[in-house]
Amino acid sequence: MTAHHGHAAGARVDELRSALPPSRVLVDPARTAAYASDWSGIAAGSPSAVVLAETTHDVVVALRWANHHGVPTTLRGGGSGVSGGAVAYDGGLVVSTARMNRILDLSPVDRIAVVEPGVLIAHLDRAAGAHGLMYAPDPVSKDIATIGGSIATNAGGLRCLAHGVTSEAVSGLEVVLPDGRVLHTGGRTRKSATGYDLTHLFVGSEGSLGVITQATVRLTPLPRGERVTFAATFPSAQAAGAAVAGLLGRGLDLELPELLDHSTLEFVRRHLAGAGPTDGAMPDGAMPDGAMPDGGTVRDGGAMLVGMVIAVDAAAQLVEARAAATDAGAVHFEASQGTGMLDVRARVKEALMAGGLEASCDAAVPPSRLAELLAAIDVIAARDGRVVATVAHAGDGNIHAAVQSRDEPDDAEAVQRVLRDIVRAALALDGVVTGEHGIGAAKVHLVAEQFTPDTLAVQHAIRELLDPRGILNPGRVI
Amino acid sequence: MTAHHGHAAGARVDELRSALPPSRVLVDPARTAAYASDWSGIAAGSPSAVVLAETTHDVVVALRWANHHGVPTTLRGGGSGVSGGAVAYDGGLVVSTARMNRILDLSPVDRIAVVEPGVLIAHLDRAAGAHGLMYAPDPVSKDIATIGGSIATNAGGLRCLAHGVTSEAVSGLEVVLPDGRVLHTGGRTRKSATGYDLTHLFVGSEGSLGVITQATVRLTPLPRGERVTFAATFPSAQAAGAAVAGLLGRGLDLELPELLDHSTLEFVRRHLAGAGPTDGAMPDGAMPDGAMPDGGTVRDGGAMLVGMVIAVDAAAQLVEARAAATDAGAVHFEASQGTGMLDVRARVKEALMAGGLEASCDAAVPPSRLAELLAAIDVIAARDGRVVATVAHAGDGNIHAAVQSRDEPDDAEAVQRVLRDIVRAALALDGVVTGEHGIGAAKVHLVAEQFTPDTLAVQHAIRELLDPRGILNPGRVI
Repeated sequence: MTAHHGHAAGARVDELRSALPPSRVLVDPARTAAYASDWSGIAAGSPSAVVLAETTHDVVVALRWANHHGVPTTLRGGGSGVSGGAVAYDGGLVVSTARMNRILDLSPVDRIAVVEPGVLIAHLDRAAGAHGLMYAPDPVSKDIATIGGSIATNAGGLRCLAHGVTSEAVSGLEVVLPDGRVLHTGGRTRKSATGYDLTHLFVGSEGSLGVITQATVRLTPLPRGERVTFAATFPSAQAAGAAVAGLLGRGLDLELPELLDHSTLEFVRRHLAGAGPTDGAMPDGAMPDGAMPDGGTVRDGGAMLVGMVIAVDAAAQLVEARAAATDAGAVHFEASQGTGMLDVRARVKEALMAGGLEASCDAAVPPSRLAELLAAIDVIAARDGRVVATVAHAGDGNIHAAVQSRDEPDDAEAVQRVLRDIVRAALALDGVVTGEHGIGAAKVHLVAEQFTPDTLAVQHAIRELLDPRGILNPGRVI
Repeated sequence: MTAHHGHAAGARVDELRSALPPSRVLVDPARTAAYASDWSGIAAGSPSAVVLAETTHDVVVALRWANHHGVPTTLRGGGSGVSGGAVAYDGGLVVSTARMNRILDLSPVDRIAVVEPGVLIAHLDRAAGAHGLMYAPDPVSKDIATIGGSIATNAGGLRCLAHGVTSEAVSGLEVVLPDGRVLHTGGRTRKSATGYDLTHLFVGSEGSLGVITQATVRLTPLPRGERVTFAATFPSAQAAGAAVAGLLGRGLDLELPELLDHSTLEFVRRHLAGAGPTDGAMPDGAMPDGAMPDGGTVRDGGAMLVGMVIAVDAAAQLVEARAAATDAGAVHFEASQGTGMLDVRARVKEALMAGGLEASCDAAVPPSRLAELLAAIDVIAARDGRVVATVAHAGDGNIHAAVQSRDEPDDAEAVQRVLRDIVRAALALDGVVTGEHGIGAAKVHLVAEQFTPDTLAVQHAIRELLDPRGILNPGRVI
């Protein structure tokens, strides 16, 4: 950057600083760096400014400034995204809505909450729980992820089979467009047939169409009855996939079925052995050594299903769940009250990271095609001679396949090729590039493979309509 | 129309006829008339052609023709809409997708059906029932309404509280744009975070953005357990509204709570007395004289709630339902197994029509505001000295208020003013102009009152983007 450019950029930033209270604009690189990256590991640029918005008006001021000067802008909630949708551009603007973190209203009768975008998901879910309700979307990151960020990525989670994805929980939005216009979409009613559904155009748009500054979200009655968890082991991941189809076909009150393949279970076992229960480092709720549900019987190539039923007649439904597992060739089935068997699932991410499997994908297929996708992953892994550890939100057909890296030159590219081939296998099975993490910067090269050219062209045209200067997450999302 | 114009119009129509098989294009006014009106009662123009599409390509050909020549075009499913969204323009084109009526796929594991738009709602629901599933959206017109039309209007129904509106059941669409491009939105997966949600942009767009030629819809497991219906009577409609709030706050497995005010019950009683059970004219499932649940105790100004619980522990939930009703001041509560008590609700529409109450509205408010809306309707009715009979899908806050007409000059306008004032009362209570019937031609003058100018402007801009020549339902919808 020449001195001239630097001077011009400095003048521009001064203009932004003069328009907002000092505590809401960061320009010192030592301070902006904390807002430049997300969990994707993608290298971030150094932003020229970070706006820590406290009001909708702050966002309006920031966007108008960026739009006027053509400054590339990233939007940021909790920064826990894993697809690079919140990674700063060099010289760009970052708008964080994390400080806008109030629950403005919570109506048990309307089963609605009105929240600012910076409210943490788990915080809202707890507030709803006091009224016998829940905020159903439950990404694993819910303790650190914001409502705004999770709406922007249409986040998923573990209990979507029973209670839906984020999109289904969003009833209305306040959105700021790049030109500073403030839209109010949807509302508090369960039914509306007036006008176009702009709400869901912004859900999942990953900060490329506008900034969510308020959300009206639906709350769901907590399921009634007893919680029973079960674990079933299968000689192959494909057999486990077939069991999922059988479980779904029986219409059980299945809160979740999680699938863990043999490799994943091995990493969890090794990780737990290394960080055993006596070292004091295990977080609350962790599984004590030896309590892993029957992992010992999962042979190489096999898999485990961990499921939960919440129902008044849970015991009767468990009989049906066992039958579905047995029909699909389960070699073992065990059940218990409470949620203890889910602990193994909760330890997967840390175990895989400890094992050096950091890069993963989140493709999804219809559940009836899950067994085929798992078979395809086996072929891809064998071809590369790499370990690929797969867990799946099996009721949604949504996999997380983590690829082992090697200490070799160009290994990162090789890992990306493996992930790309897994995504292509999913697309060939009526699937999608990303089920719940979003496209961001990491997967934008794959988007065109999911859509017909005309369907993609309309998406680009809508983007250009709402963000004609192209300041919001340019080059990303689609 | 001059002879010259007539000649040009004739040549244009000949161009369309030569592009499609003869059986798929009607031009004779004696035959097109059957496709010119819907159930709104709004006067229809005489279309220059009706295309009875049998394939997506037929729709492409028809729209390209209309777009090229600037012919105003209405889209038509079952023709059962009540808002004038399918009323033909004089000299316009009508595209019917009623002949595209095949269920292309139904997967119990994926809980998905792929259907052509002309499939009747009840037909799909029965097909799903064979697999222990249901197609949840259930507008009263489900025996004659098509999937395509109900998606285009985001139709509601009676069981939306428990199972959602049409929008929530739509997973993907094939849509033809005015320029003939064919889009494929969404898909078969439960989760998707790739690209923008174009699907829900078309849901509820009432034939103003494109033509739905295929839909991928979600199926829902049939509720497990026993069906129990109950009826509770209240001294005032507002007390019944308060009871709804109490029922919702208890988190019951409430399939529906329908509210019928005193006037509505009186019309039903008179209608049933006039068409008594011995005349042989009562349809199957009709309520025999005397079986009306305790209607005799509903005093002037009072109301009845009819509800249904489907649950394994239905008896226990009924105890809670009774408590909620009693807390709100119920003067009577009765319950029975099965669905018999719902019959009174099924007779409302015919009873009101027989009583000369044809014009009605379908505004919706958050359920917590329902009692206030009912009070406002009382005030409006009293001011005009007219009977207004109100039923409500009370769990959704969605009312149908039917206004008595008089044999007076300009009475139709006076009735419309009453309906407009009811809609305005709903809007003032965080409500919407239309909950489930759509805007069509009938309510387009009220749309601007629901949205801020910027929010409405973006809707118009999207319409112009997708339909730049303005051929689809011009002057309607927004």
